[in-house]
Amino acid sequence: MAQPILFEPVESPFLVPFDDSFKIKKAPTESSDDPGKPLNVEALEESIDRLAKLQGKLYADDRYSVLLIFQAMDAAGKDGTIRAVMTGLNPQGCQVFSFKAPNAEELDHDFLWRIQRSLPERGRIGVFNRSHYEEALVVRVHPNYLAGQRLPRRPDNLEELWEERFESINAAEKHWARNGCVVLKFFLNVSQKEQHKRFLDRTTDADDHWKFNAGDLAESKHWDEYMDAYQAALRATSKPWAPWYAIPADSKSFMRRTVAEIIADTLGQLPLAFPIPNDKDRAALEAARTELQAELRK
Amino acid sequence: MAQPILFEPVESPFLVPFDDSFKIKKAPTESSDDPGKPLNVEALEESIDRLAKLQGKLYADDRYSVLLIFQAMDAAGKDGTIRAVMTGLNPQGCQVFSFKAPNAEELDHDFLWRIQRSLPERGRIGVFNRSHYEEALVVRVHPNYLAGQRLPRRPDNLEELWEERFESINAAEKHWARNGCVVLKFFLNVSQKEQHKRFLDRTTDADDHWKFNAGDLAESKHWDEYMDAYQAALRATSKPWAPWYAIPADSKSFMRRTVAEIIADTLGQLPLAFPIPNDKDRAALEAARTELQAELRK
Repeated sequence: MAQPILFEPVESPFLVPFDDSFKIKKAPTESSDDPGKPLNVEALEESIDRLAKLQGKLYADDRYSVLLIFQAMDAAGKDGTIRAVMTGLNPQGCQVFSFKAPNAEELDHDFLWRIQRSLPERGRIGVFNRSHYEEALVVRVHPNYLAGQRLPRRPDNLEELWEERFESINAAEKHWARNGCVVLKFFLNVSQKEQHKRFLDRTTDADDHWKFNAGDLAESKHWDEYMDAYQAALRATSKPWAPWYAIPADSKSFMRRTVAEIIADTLGQLPLAFPIPNDKDRAALEAARTELQAELRK
Repeated sequence: MAQPILFEPVESPFLVPFDDSFKIKKAPTESSDDPGKPLNVEALEESIDRLAKLQGKLYADDRYSVLLIFQAMDAAGKDGTIRAVMTGLNPQGCQVFSFKAPNAEELDHDFLWRIQRSLPERGRIGVFNRSHYEEALVVRVHPNYLAGQRLPRRPDNLEELWEERFESINAAEKHWARNGCVVLKFFLNVSQKEQHKRFLDRTTDADDHWKFNAGDLAESKHWDEYMDAYQAALRATSKPWAPWYAIPADSKSFMRRTVAEIIADTLGQLPLAFPIPNDKDRAALEAARTELQAELRK
């Protein structure tokens, strides 16, 4: 087995295998291991505690960065999961980017340009709510979006274009990993039935109706095409240095605890260390201490 | 022969071959074909005229971008060549970036981060005065610079690190090309003797002495190591979609005309077109013309 680039992907029944065998129809949208909400909430809190401590070390160590990518169908719970898992972390070391349809300046560059600008700095955690994967998901389901991209060339058939995009993405993510970025990718796998239940709730809930968008229901009619696109993307781009996890999303509490556990377990593996003062640092600390004590004694 | 990604590299005795056979000791620093300064100046002007016209079409076409990368030893003439070739172009469609030692924010990201942020938009020409190649040139000659990069991992031996960097660079440049960026790379190949002559001139010239930096002479003592590093970089990264040209630089006028010719000949190949109005556009033009004529007749 080759030396891992930065970390060994955490074992999980939801890890998308690296051998092209992932079948989205077999990927569960609910788990038989789900112990129910109270235990999930407890487990989530435990993971967040671990994560908060790890974040402090990550920041002090200042060599690794962490990139968490979330992709899902509408109403699968991306926003809620990001909020649940990241609340409790120090916002100074954590930044969330939502990638919507690209603007004119972004379309004037290659599709990774806006992504790379937003990569987390060393010592920090970056979260992408949607990402470069949209280029092989929504654009694959709606290839007419390509017209807006002003590409001067295109391979002879579209299949090749998606393969090229996967190749670009894999190369970029490998480069990020080699240079210290821990990439974890989560597909929140909701069933269409659960999605429609949540849509229905949104239409009636006084606090949530602003979340409902008639376009979401229209998009849901492309379900099978989206599932094909997700399967192709996850197969092509789940790599030991940037693994995908397909998380059952029909139970929100189970999804959130599972995501938080995978993140905490992964970061827990890193050889993070608070900087150790050398002799010169120690002498400087000693001198400062003496000076400050003398001053405060006056 | 495979279909080229965006363009066919211009034939030239200075094109670095794609088969790993480039030998820097055999690469000429002066050309036997140099017809002398007056003819070079005339040829340069002719190429600049062509380039200015092509730039207008590039801008209107708005699908391709152009990236010109210049690398060289000190005093080889990077600044002068950039000035000579780009003056006469519309600055609105042209941007020059000089990459010096990375700052703290840049070191907090992977080494391609600052490069990618600076990539030219569609329709525009970007010029890099030094570039990501420094990561396998100056850093290879001075590997102690790596300490400042805070990399959490490094391959077991440094040779592997440079290979990884070339792999990252090749993948990134291929991605840029596939998405519409024409990448041309120029190594301005000056001899050490000519370099020292120019250093000496700088120490005595009242207008140029500010250009002399004692550090440049110290750096020149690493000449052979730099030549090895350039040879390795040019061999590994001269690709049909992003070719290197090793331009003899001992004669400034020959260097400038040659660079300008290669750029103009490459852009001349692109199927650039002014947008053609469709029926709707034509109707809108017609309506506007009628309205304006009526208004101005009042």
